[in-house]
Amino acid sequence: MRILLSNDDGIGAEGIRVLARELAAIGEVYVVAPDRQRSAAGHGITLHKPLFLEEHDFGPGIHAYGLSGTPADCVKFGVTELMKDVKPDLVVSGINAGSNLGNDVMYSGTVSAAIEGSIQGIPAIAVSQCGSEPFDYQGAAEFTKRLIGEVLQNGIEPDTILNVNYPPLLPREVQGVRITSIGKRRYENHYDKRTNPRGVSYYWLAGPLKKLEQEPDADIRAVREGFISVSPVHFDFTHRRMIDTLKTWSLH
Amino acid sequence: MRILLSNDDGIGAEGIRVLARELAAIGEVYVVAPDRQRSAAGHGITLHKPLFLEEHDFGPGIHAYGLSGTPADCVKFGVTELMKDVKPDLVVSGINAGSNLGNDVMYSGTVSAAIEGSIQGIPAIAVSQCGSEPFDYQGAAEFTKRLIGEVLQNGIEPDTILNVNYPPLLPREVQGVRITSIGKRRYENHYDKRTNPRGVSYYWLAGPLKKLEQEPDADIRAVREGFISVSPVHFDFTHRRMIDTLKTWSLH
Repeated sequence: MRILLSNDDGIGAEGIRVLARELAAIGEVYVVAPDRQRSAAGHGITLHKPLFLEEHDFGPGIHAYGLSGTPADCVKFGVTELMKDVKPDLVVSGINAGSNLGNDVMYSGTVSAAIEGSIQGIPAIAVSQCGSEPFDYQGAAEFTKRLIGEVLQNGIEPDTILNVNYPPLLPREVQGVRITSIGKRRYENHYDKRTNPRGVSYYWLAGPLKKLEQEPDADIRAVREGFISVSPVHFDFTHRRMIDTLKTWSLH
Repeated sequence: MRILLSNDDGIGAEGIRVLARELAAIGEVYVVAPDRQRSAAGHGITLHKPLFLEEHDFGPGIHAYGLSGTPADCVKFGVTELMKDVKPDLVVSGINAGSNLGNDVMYSGTVSAAIEGSIQGIPAIAVSQCGSEPFDYQGAAEFTKRLIGEVLQNGIEPDTILNVNYPPLLPREVQGVRITSIGKRRYENHYDKRTNPRGVSYYWLAGPLKKLEQEPDADIRAVREGFISVSPVHFDFTHRRMIDTLKTWSLH
Protein backbone atom coordinates (compact mmCIF):
# COMPACT_ATOMS: atom_id res chain seq x y z
CA MET A 1 0.00 0.00 0.00
CA ARG A 2 1.19 3.53 -0.84
CA ILE A 3 0.19 6.50 1.26
CA LEU A 4 0.66 10.15 0.30
CA LEU A 5 1.01 12.32 3.38
CA SER A 6 0.72 16.10 3.56
CA ASN A 7 -0.21 18.83 6.05
CA ASP A 8 -0.45 22.60 6.38
CA ASP A 9 1.96 23.14 9.27
CA GLY A 10 4.89 22.46 6.94
CA ILE A 11 7.46 19.73 6.40
CA GLY A 12 9.24 20.64 9.66
CA ALA A 13 6.19 20.06 11.89
CA GLU A 14 6.27 17.28 14.48
CA GLY A 15 2.76 15.99 13.70
CA ILE A 16 3.60 14.87 10.17
CA ARG A 17 6.80 13.10 11.34
CA VAL A 18 4.99 11.13 14.02
CA LEU A 19 2.30 10.11 11.53
CA ALA A 20 4.80 9.24 8.77
CA ARG A 21 6.67 6.90 11.13
CA GLU A 22 3.45 5.28 12.34
CA LEU A 23 2.17 4.75 8.77
CA ALA A 24 5.52 3.42 7.52
CA ALA A 25 4.60 0.27 9.46
CA ILE A 26 1.63 -0.42 7.16
CA GLY A 27 2.77 0.92 3.78
CA GLU A 28 5.20 2.89 1.66
CA VAL A 29 4.94 6.52 2.72
CA TYR A 30 5.46 9.53 0.44
CA VAL A 31 5.47 12.91 2.17
CA VAL A 32 4.90 16.10 0.16
CA ALA A 33 4.32 18.99 2.52
CA PRO A 34 4.63 22.78 2.29
CA ASP A 35 8.18 24.02 2.88
CA ARG A 36 6.81 26.34 5.56
CA GLN A 37 3.77 27.04 7.76
CA ARG A 38 0.65 27.31 5.53
CA SER A 39 -2.15 27.19 8.11
CA ALA A 40 -5.46 28.72 6.99
CA ALA A 41 -4.34 28.43 3.38
CA GLY A 42 -7.82 27.24 2.38
CA HIS A 43 -7.96 25.50 -0.97
CA GLY A 44 -5.48 27.81 -2.67
CA ILE A 45 -3.34 26.51 -5.51
CA THR A 46 -0.31 28.16 -7.09
CA LEU A 47 -0.81 29.25 -10.70
CA HIS A 48 1.35 32.37 -10.99
CA LYS A 49 4.59 31.13 -9.47
CA PRO A 50 6.66 28.03 -10.15
CA LEU A 51 7.05 25.42 -7.42
CA PHE A 52 10.38 24.35 -5.91
CA LEU A 53 10.91 20.88 -4.42
CA GLU A 54 13.47 19.83 -1.83
CA GLU A 55 14.15 16.36 -0.46
CA HIS A 56 14.06 15.79 3.31
CA ASP A 57 15.22 12.91 5.50
CA PHE A 58 12.35 11.26 7.37
CA GLY A 59 14.11 7.94 8.00
CA PRO A 60 13.86 4.54 6.29
CA GLY A 61 10.88 3.66 4.08
CA ILE A 62 9.72 7.29 3.83
CA HIS A 63 10.21 9.50 0.76
CA ALA A 64 9.88 13.09 1.99
CA TYR A 65 9.79 16.39 0.11
CA GLY A 66 9.11 20.02 0.94
CA LEU A 67 7.30 21.99 -1.79
CA SER A 68 7.08 25.79 -2.06
CA GLY A 69 3.29 25.68 -2.42
CA THR A 70 0.01 25.31 -0.57
CA PRO A 71 -1.31 22.07 0.96
CA ALA A 72 -3.53 21.54 -2.12
CA ASP A 73 -0.49 22.08 -4.38
CA CYS A 74 1.41 19.44 -2.40
CA VAL A 75 -1.25 16.77 -2.91
CA LYS A 76 -1.81 17.70 -6.56
CA PHE A 77 1.94 17.55 -7.16
CA GLY A 78 2.31 14.33 -5.18
CA VAL A 79 -0.42 12.52 -7.12
CA THR A 80 0.11 13.87 -10.63
CA GLU A 81 3.91 14.28 -10.72
CA LEU A 82 5.88 12.59 -7.95
CA MET A 83 3.70 9.45 -7.78
CA LYS A 84 2.39 9.48 -11.34
CA ASP A 85 3.65 5.94 -11.94
CA VAL A 86 2.77 4.59 -8.49
CA LYS A 87 -0.63 6.12 -7.72
CA PRO A 88 -1.31 6.38 -3.96
CA ASP A 89 -4.02 4.22 -2.39
CA LEU A 90 -4.72 6.87 0.21
CA VAL A 91 -4.07 10.53 0.98
CA VAL A 92 -3.66 11.52 4.64
CA SER A 93 -3.29 15.11 5.82
CA GLY A 94 -1.91 15.90 9.27
CA ILE A 95 -1.51 15.48 12.09
CA ASN A 96 -2.38 19.14 12.46
CA ALA A 97 -1.25 21.06 15.54
CA GLY A 98 -4.67 22.21 16.74
CA SER A 99 -8.29 21.44 15.92
CA ASN A 100 -10.08 21.76 12.57
CA LEU A 101 -13.66 21.82 13.76
CA GLY A 102 -16.93 23.35 12.60
CA ASN A 103 -16.89 25.96 9.84
CA ASP A 104 -13.13 26.29 10.26
CA VAL A 105 -12.85 23.41 7.78
CA MET A 106 -13.53 26.13 5.19
CA TYR A 107 -10.22 27.85 5.97
CA SER A 108 -8.27 24.74 6.85
CA GLY A 109 -5.22 23.85 4.80
CA THR A 110 -5.26 20.42 6.49
CA VAL A 111 -8.75 19.67 5.23
CA SER A 112 -8.02 21.16 1.82
CA ALA A 113 -5.05 18.82 1.28
CA ALA A 114 -7.41 15.89 1.88
CA ILE A 115 -10.05 17.38 -0.42
CA GLU A 116 -7.46 17.66 -3.20
CA GLY A 117 -6.82 13.94 -2.74
CA SER A 118 -10.52 13.24 -3.16
CA ILE A 119 -10.66 15.51 -6.25
CA GLN A 120 -7.85 13.36 -7.65
CA GLY A 121 -10.03 10.30 -7.03
CA ILE A 122 -8.16 8.96 -4.00
CA PRO A 123 -9.74 8.24 -0.58
CA ALA A 124 -8.55 10.89 1.84
CA ILE A 125 -8.46 11.65 5.56
CA ALA A 126 -7.61 14.84 7.48
CA VAL A 127 -6.37 14.42 11.06
CA SER A 128 -6.01 17.11 13.72
CA GLN A 129 -4.86 17.01 17.33
CA CYS A 130 -7.01 19.36 19.40
CA GLY A 131 -5.64 21.35 22.32
CA SER A 132 -2.51 23.46 22.51
CA GLU A 133 1.28 23.11 22.86
CA PRO A 134 2.83 20.74 23.85
CA PHE A 135 0.92 18.34 21.56
CA ASP A 136 1.08 14.56 21.97
CA TYR A 137 0.38 13.01 18.55
CA GLN A 138 0.74 9.32 19.38
CA GLY A 139 -2.91 8.58 20.16
CA ALA A 140 -4.12 10.32 17.01
CA ALA A 141 -1.49 8.53 14.90
CA GLU A 142 -2.60 5.14 16.21
CA PHE A 143 -6.27 5.92 15.66
CA THR A 144 -5.48 7.05 12.10
CA LYS A 145 -3.89 3.66 11.41
CA ARG A 146 -7.06 1.92 12.61
CA LEU A 147 -9.27 4.24 10.54
CA ILE A 148 -7.18 3.57 7.42
CA GLY A 149 -7.97 -0.13 7.75
CA GLU A 150 -11.69 0.66 7.68
CA VAL A 151 -11.33 3.15 4.79
CA LEU A 152 -9.51 0.61 2.63
CA GLN A 153 -12.15 -2.01 3.42
CA ASN A 154 -15.28 0.16 3.02
CA GLY A 155 -14.26 3.07 0.80
CA ILE A 156 -15.45 6.69 1.06
CA GLU A 157 -18.30 8.26 -0.93
CA PRO A 158 -17.26 10.38 -3.95
CA ASP A 159 -16.33 14.02 -3.32
CA THR A 160 -16.10 13.29 0.40
CA ILE A 161 -13.27 13.11 2.92
CA LEU A 162 -13.14 12.07 6.57
CA ASN A 163 -12.19 14.81 9.02
CA VAL A 164 -10.76 13.47 12.28
CA ASN A 165 -10.25 15.53 15.43
CA TYR A 166 -8.55 13.84 18.37
CA PRO A 167 -9.33 15.28 21.81
CA PRO A 168 -6.53 16.69 23.99
CA LEU A 169 -6.45 13.58 26.16
CA LEU A 170 -4.31 10.52 26.74
CA PRO A 171 -5.60 7.45 24.85
CA ARG A 172 -6.89 5.86 28.10
CA GLU A 173 -8.85 9.03 28.93
CA VAL A 174 -10.61 9.15 25.54
CA GLN A 175 -14.36 8.44 25.84
CA GLY A 176 -14.68 6.71 22.46
CA VAL A 177 -15.38 7.62 18.82
CA ARG A 178 -18.30 9.72 17.60
CA ILE A 179 -19.42 10.09 13.99
CA THR A 180 -20.26 13.77 13.81
CA SER A 181 -21.61 16.63 11.73
CA ILE A 182 -19.72 19.88 11.12
CA GLY A 183 -20.65 22.25 13.93
CA LYS A 184 -21.11 26.01 13.98
CA ARG A 185 -18.03 28.07 14.61
CA ARG A 186 -17.86 31.84 14.33
CA TYR A 187 -15.33 34.36 15.62
CA GLU A 188 -15.85 37.83 17.03
CA ASN A 189 -13.23 39.05 14.61
CA HIS A 190 -11.56 42.39 14.86
CA TYR A 191 -8.24 43.79 13.67
CA ASP A 192 -5.50 45.07 15.97
CA LYS A 193 -4.04 48.19 14.37
CA ARG A 194 -0.36 48.89 15.03
CA THR A 195 2.35 51.17 13.67
CA ASN A 196 5.81 49.98 12.70
CA PRO A 197 9.06 51.84 13.55
CA ARG A 198 8.85 53.58 10.16
CA GLY A 199 5.38 54.97 10.91
CA VAL A 200 3.48 52.55 8.64
CA SER A 201 0.18 51.14 9.96
CA TYR A 202 -0.60 47.45 9.79
CA TYR A 203 -3.30 45.11 11.08
CA TRP A 204 -3.42 41.73 12.82
CA LEU A 205 -6.51 39.55 12.59
CA ALA A 206 -7.74 38.89 16.14
CA GLY A 207 -10.83 37.98 18.12
CA PRO A 208 -12.18 35.15 20.27
CA LEU A 209 -14.58 32.34 19.34
CA LYS A 210 -18.26 33.09 19.79
CA LYS A 211 -20.11 30.79 22.20
CA LEU A 212 -22.70 29.04 20.03
CA GLU A 213 -25.25 26.31 20.79
CA GLN A 214 -24.16 23.08 19.03
CA GLU A 215 -26.24 20.26 17.56
CA PRO A 216 -26.08 17.03 19.65
CA ASP A 217 -23.96 15.30 16.97
CA ALA A 218 -21.63 18.25 16.25
CA ASP A 219 -17.87 17.66 16.02
CA ILE A 220 -17.19 20.55 18.41
CA ARG A 221 -19.36 18.97 21.11
CA ALA A 222 -17.83 15.49 20.63
CA VAL A 223 -14.29 16.76 21.24
CA ARG A 224 -15.42 18.90 24.17
CA GLU A 225 -16.93 15.75 25.74
CA GLY A 226 -13.72 13.75 25.27
CA PHE A 227 -14.54 11.79 22.11
CA ILE A 228 -12.58 11.32 18.88
CA SER A 229 -14.66 13.04 16.21
CA VAL A 230 -14.94 11.61 12.67
CA SER A 231 -16.97 13.77 10.22
CA PRO A 232 -17.79 12.94 6.60
CA VAL A 233 -17.10 16.26 4.82
CA HIS A 234 -18.32 16.62 1.25
CA PHE A 235 -18.11 19.39 -1.27
CA ASP A 236 -21.42 19.38 -3.07
CA PHE A 237 -21.82 23.08 -3.62
CA THR A 238 -25.19 23.29 -5.33
CA HIS A 239 -28.04 24.42 -3.08
CA ARG A 240 -30.72 22.35 -4.84
CA ARG A 241 -33.69 23.78 -2.95
CA MET A 242 -32.73 27.35 -3.74
CA ILE A 243 -32.63 26.62 -7.48
CA ASP A 244 -36.44 26.52 -7.46
CA THR A 245 -36.65 29.79 -5.55
CA LEU A 246 -34.25 31.52 -7.92
CA LYS A 247 -36.34 30.45 -10.89
CA THR A 248 -39.14 32.68 -9.58
CA TRP A 249 -36.90 35.81 -9.52
CA SER A 250 -37.21 38.45 -12.27
CA LEU A 251 -33.86 38.09 -13.97
CA HIS A 252 -34.91 37.66 -17.58
CA MET B 1 -27.40 51.15 0.37
CA ARG B 2 -23.79 50.23 1.08
CA ILE B 3 -21.97 47.69 -1.06
CA LEU B 4 -18.62 46.09 -0.22
CA LEU B 5 -16.78 45.10 -3.38
CA SER B 6 -13.80 42.75 -3.65
CA ASN B 7 -12.16 40.41 -6.15
CA ASP B 8 -9.19 38.10 -6.57
CA ASP B 9 -7.54 39.74 -9.60
CA GLY B 10 -6.37 42.61 -7.40
CA ILE B 11 -7.22 46.29 -6.93
CA GLY B 12 -5.64 47.16 -10.30
CA ALA B 13 -7.91 44.89 -12.35
CA GLU B 14 -10.31 46.43 -14.85
CA GLY B 15 -13.30 44.24 -13.85
CA ILE B 16 -13.58 45.67 -10.35
CA ARG B 17 -13.34 49.25 -11.63
CA VAL B 18 -16.12 48.78 -14.16
CA LEU B 19 -18.32 47.16 -11.50
CA ALA B 20 -17.52 49.81 -8.87
CA ARG B 21 -18.55 52.60 -11.25
CA GLU B 22 -21.75 50.78 -12.24
CA LEU B 23 -22.72 50.11 -8.60
CA ALA B 24 -21.91 53.67 -7.48
CA ALA B 25 -25.15 54.61 -9.29
CA ILE B 26 -27.22 52.58 -6.82
CA GLY B 27 -25.31 52.85 -3.55
CA GLU B 28 -22.24 53.85 -1.59
CA VAL B 29 -19.41 51.60 -2.76
CA TYR B 30 -16.50 50.43 -0.58
CA VAL B 31 -13.77 48.52 -2.41
CA VAL B 32 -11.33 46.33 -0.47
CA ALA B 33 -9.35 44.17 -2.87
CA PRO B 34 -6.01 42.36 -2.76
CA ASP B 35 -3.05 44.60 -3.56
CA ARG B 36 -2.02 42.10 -6.27
CA GLN B 37 -3.22 39.12 -8.31
CA ARG B 38 -4.60 36.45 -5.93
CA SER B 39 -6.41 34.10 -8.33
CA ALA B 40 -6.89 30.55 -7.09
CA ALA B 41 -6.34 31.75 -3.53
CA GLY B 42 -9.16 29.51 -2.32
CA HIS B 43 -10.55 30.45 1.07
CA GLY B 44 -7.17 31.28 2.58
CA ILE B 45 -6.92 33.86 5.34
CA THR B 46 -3.80 35.53 6.71
CA LEU B 47 -2.98 34.60 10.31
CA HIS B 48 0.82 34.67 10.39
CA LYS B 49 1.51 38.02 8.74
CA PRO B 50 0.12 41.48 9.41
CA LEU B 51 -1.98 43.17 6.72
CA PHE B 52 -1.11 46.48 5.09
CA LEU B 53 -3.79 48.81 3.69
CA GLU B 54 -3.38 51.46 0.99
CA GLU B 55 -5.98 53.91 -0.32
CA HIS B 56 -6.69 54.04 -4.07
CA ASP B 57 -8.56 56.55 -6.22
CA PHE B 58 -11.62 55.02 -7.89
CA GLY B 59 -13.44 58.32 -8.50
CA PRO B 60 -16.31 60.06 -6.67
CA GLY B 61 -18.59 58.08 -4.32
CA ILE B 62 -16.18 55.13 -4.12
CA HIS B 63 -13.91 54.37 -1.13
CA ALA B 64 -11.19 52.08 -2.46
CA TYR B 65 -8.39 50.22 -0.68
CA GLY B 66 -5.78 47.63 -1.57
CA LEU B 67 -4.99 45.12 1.19
CA SER B 68 -1.94 42.83 1.36
CA GLY B 69 -4.10 39.75 1.91
CA THR B 70 -6.32 37.17 0.25
CA PRO B 71 -9.83 37.83 -1.12
CA ALA B 72 -11.34 36.35 2.08
CA ASP B 73 -9.08 38.65 4.17
CA CYS B 74 -10.35 41.63 2.17
CA VAL B 75 -14.00 40.91 2.89
CA LYS B 76 -13.35 40.03 6.53
CA PHE B 77 -11.37 43.26 6.95
CA GLY B 78 -13.97 45.27 5.03
CA VAL B 79 -16.86 44.08 7.16
CA THR B 80 -15.26 43.89 10.61
CA GLU B 81 -12.81 46.80 10.49
CA LEU B 82 -13.28 49.31 7.66
CA MET B 83 -17.09 49.22 7.70
CA LYS B 84 -17.62 48.21 11.32
CA ASP B 85 -19.83 51.25 11.96
CA VAL B 86 -21.63 51.18 8.59
CA LYS B 87 -22.28 47.47 7.97
CA PRO B 88 -22.61 46.66 4.23
CA ASP B 89 -25.99 45.57 2.87
CA LEU B 90 -24.32 43.43 0.25
CA VAL B 91 -20.95 41.92 -0.67
CA VAL B 92 -20.08 41.62 -4.37
CA SER B 93 -16.95 39.91 -5.67
CA GLY B 94 -15.71 40.53 -9.20
CA ILE B 95 -15.98 41.01 -12.01
CA ASN B 96 -13.44 38.25 -12.46
CA ALA B 97 -11.37 38.04 -15.64
CA GLY B 98 -12.35 34.51 -16.69
CA SER B 99 -14.96 31.95 -15.65
CA ASN B 100 -15.51 30.39 -12.23
CA LEU B 101 -17.50 27.32 -13.24
CA GLY B 102 -17.96 23.79 -11.96
CA ASN B 103 -15.63 22.48 -9.28
CA ASP B 104 -13.31 25.41 -9.89
CA VAL B 105 -15.43 27.29 -7.36
CA MET B 106 -13.41 25.29 -4.81
CA TYR B 107 -10.20 27.07 -5.82
CA SER B 108 -11.75 30.39 -6.71
CA GLY B 109 -10.70 33.48 -4.80
CA THR B 110 -13.65 35.30 -6.39
CA VAL B 111 -16.15 32.84 -4.92
CA SER B 112 -14.33 32.72 -1.60
CA ALA B 113 -14.61 36.50 -1.16
CA ALA B 114 -18.39 36.15 -1.56
CA ILE B 115 -18.48 33.19 0.83
CA GLU B 116 -16.68 35.26 3.46
CA GLY B 117 -19.46 37.85 3.06
CA SER B 118 -22.03 35.16 3.71
CA ILE B 119 -20.07 33.88 6.74
CA GLN B 120 -20.24 37.46 8.06
CA GLY B 121 -24.03 37.31 7.64
CA ILE B 122 -24.27 39.54 4.56
CA PRO B 123 -25.91 38.53 1.25
CA ALA B 124 -23.17 37.98 -1.31
CA ILE B 125 -22.67 37.54 -5.05
CA ALA B 126 -19.64 36.41 -7.09
CA VAL B 127 -19.49 37.59 -10.71
CA SER B 128 -17.19 36.32 -13.46
CA GLN B 129 -16.83 37.25 -17.12
CA CYS B 130 -16.17 34.10 -19.14
CA GLY B 131 -13.88 34.03 -22.18
CA SER B 132 -10.41 35.48 -22.58
CA GLU B 133 -8.64 38.81 -23.14
CA PRO B 134 -9.81 41.38 -24.13
CA PHE B 135 -12.75 41.19 -21.69
CA ASP B 136 -15.82 43.42 -21.99
CA TYR B 137 -17.32 43.78 -18.50
CA GLN B 138 -20.24 46.10 -19.24
CA GLY B 139 -22.90 43.44 -19.81
CA ALA B 140 -21.96 41.55 -16.64
CA ALA B 141 -21.90 44.80 -14.64
CA GLU B 142 -25.39 45.72 -15.79
CA PHE B 143 -26.73 42.24 -15.08
CA THR B 144 -25.19 42.39 -11.59
CA LYS B 145 -27.09 45.61 -10.89
CA ARG B 146 -30.33 43.88 -11.88
CA LEU B 147 -29.52 40.82 -9.77
CA ILE B 148 -28.78 43.01 -6.74
CA GLY B 149 -32.31 44.39 -6.91
CA GLU B 150 -33.69 40.86 -6.68
CA VAL B 151 -31.28 39.88 -3.89
CA LEU B 152 -32.29 42.85 -1.76
CA GLN B 153 -35.97 42.09 -2.34
CA ASN B 154 -35.87 38.29 -1.84
CA GLY B 155 -32.77 37.59 0.26
CA ILE B 156 -30.43 34.59 -0.07
CA GLU B 157 -30.59 31.40 2.02
CA PRO B 158 -28.10 31.15 4.93
CA ASP B 159 -24.58 29.90 4.15
CA THR B 160 -25.26 30.40 0.44
CA ILE B 161 -23.98 32.80 -2.22
CA LEU B 162 -24.95 33.38 -5.83
CA ASN B 163 -22.27 32.58 -8.38
CA VAL B 164 -22.77 34.42 -11.69
CA ASN B 165 -20.94 33.61 -14.91
CA TYR B 166 -21.54 35.89 -17.88
CA PRO B 167 -20.95 34.34 -21.31
CA PRO B 168 -18.33 35.84 -23.68
CA LEU B 169 -21.01 37.58 -25.75
CA LEU B 170 -22.39 41.05 -26.34
CA PRO B 171 -25.57 41.73 -24.31
CA ARG B 172 -27.75 41.45 -27.45
CA GLU B 173 -26.25 38.02 -28.26
CA VAL B 174 -26.96 36.58 -24.78
CA GLN B 175 -29.63 33.85 -24.88
CA GLY B 176 -31.07 34.62 -21.45
CA VAL B 177 -30.53 33.64 -17.82
CA ARG B 178 -30.33 30.08 -16.50
CA ILE B 179 -30.45 29.03 -12.85
CA THR B 180 -27.83 26.31 -12.73
CA SER B 181 -26.10 23.64 -10.67
CA ILE B 182 -22.31 23.43 -10.25
CA GLY B 183 -20.99 21.27 -13.09
CA LYS B 184 -18.14 18.80 -13.19
CA ARG B 185 -14.73 20.21 -14.05
CA ARG B 186 -11.51 18.28 -13.84
CA TYR B 187 -8.09 18.94 -15.34
CA GLU B 188 -5.57 16.55 -16.81
CA ASN B 189 -2.97 18.12 -14.57
CA HIS B 190 0.71 17.67 -15.01
CA TYR B 191 3.77 19.67 -14.05
CA ASP B 192 6.22 21.20 -16.52
CA LYS B 193 9.71 20.73 -15.09
CA ARG B 194 12.29 23.40 -15.97
CA THR B 195 15.73 24.41 -14.79
CA ASN B 196 16.69 27.98 -13.96
CA PRO B 197 19.99 29.63 -15.02
CA ARG B 198 21.49 28.60 -11.65
CA GLY B 199 20.70 24.91 -12.26
CA VAL B 200 17.77 24.73 -9.85
CA SER B 201 14.71 22.74 -10.97
CA TYR B 202 11.22 24.13 -10.67
CA TYR B 203 7.71 23.13 -11.75
CA TRP B 204 4.75 24.86 -13.39
CA LEU B 205 1.24 23.49 -12.94
CA ALA B 206 -0.17 22.74 -16.40
CA GLY B 207 -2.73 20.61 -18.18
CA PRO B 208 -5.95 21.01 -20.17
CA LEU B 209 -9.55 20.58 -19.06
CA LYS B 210 -10.96 17.09 -19.33
CA LYS B 211 -14.02 16.76 -21.56
CA LEU B 212 -16.81 15.65 -19.22
CA GLU B 213 -20.52 15.01 -19.76
CA GLN B 214 -22.51 17.77 -18.00
CA GLU B 215 -25.95 17.64 -16.35
CA PRO B 216 -28.62 19.50 -18.36
CA ASP B 217 -28.77 22.28 -15.74
CA ALA B 218 -24.98 22.60 -15.23
CA ASP B 219 -23.40 26.08 -15.16
CA ILE B 220 -20.73 24.98 -17.67
CA ARG B 221 -23.38 23.97 -20.19
CA ALA B 222 -25.41 27.18 -19.71
CA VAL B 223 -22.44 29.42 -20.53
CA ARG B 224 -21.43 27.22 -23.46
CA GLU B 225 -24.95 27.66 -24.86
CA GLY B 226 -24.82 31.46 -24.50
CA PHE B 227 -26.75 31.93 -21.24
CA ILE B 228 -25.91 33.92 -18.13
CA SER B 229 -25.46 31.29 -15.39
CA VAL B 230 -26.64 31.94 -11.81
CA SER B 231 -25.84 29.14 -9.33
CA PRO B 232 -26.79 29.01 -5.65
CA VAL B 233 -23.55 27.80 -4.00
CA HIS B 234 -23.75 26.70 -0.39
CA PHE B 235 -21.21 25.38 2.04
CA ASP B 236 -22.96 22.70 4.05
CA PHE B 237 -20.08 20.33 4.50
CA THR B 238 -21.69 17.44 6.36
CA HIS B 239 -22.42 14.39 4.23
CA ARG B 240 -25.55 13.33 6.19
CA ARG B 241 -26.08 10.02 4.42
CA MET B 242 -22.54 8.88 5.06
CA ILE B 243 -22.92 9.47 8.81
CA ASP B 244 -25.11 6.35 9.00
CA THR B 245 -22.59 4.30 7.00
CA LEU B 246 -19.71 5.41 9.20
CA LYS B 247 -21.61 4.37 12.31
CA THR B 248 -21.34 0.74 11.09
CA TRP B 249 -17.52 0.88 10.84
CA SER B 250 -15.36 -0.77 13.53
CA LEU B 251 -13.74 2.28 15.06
CA HIS B 252 -14.49 1.77 18.74
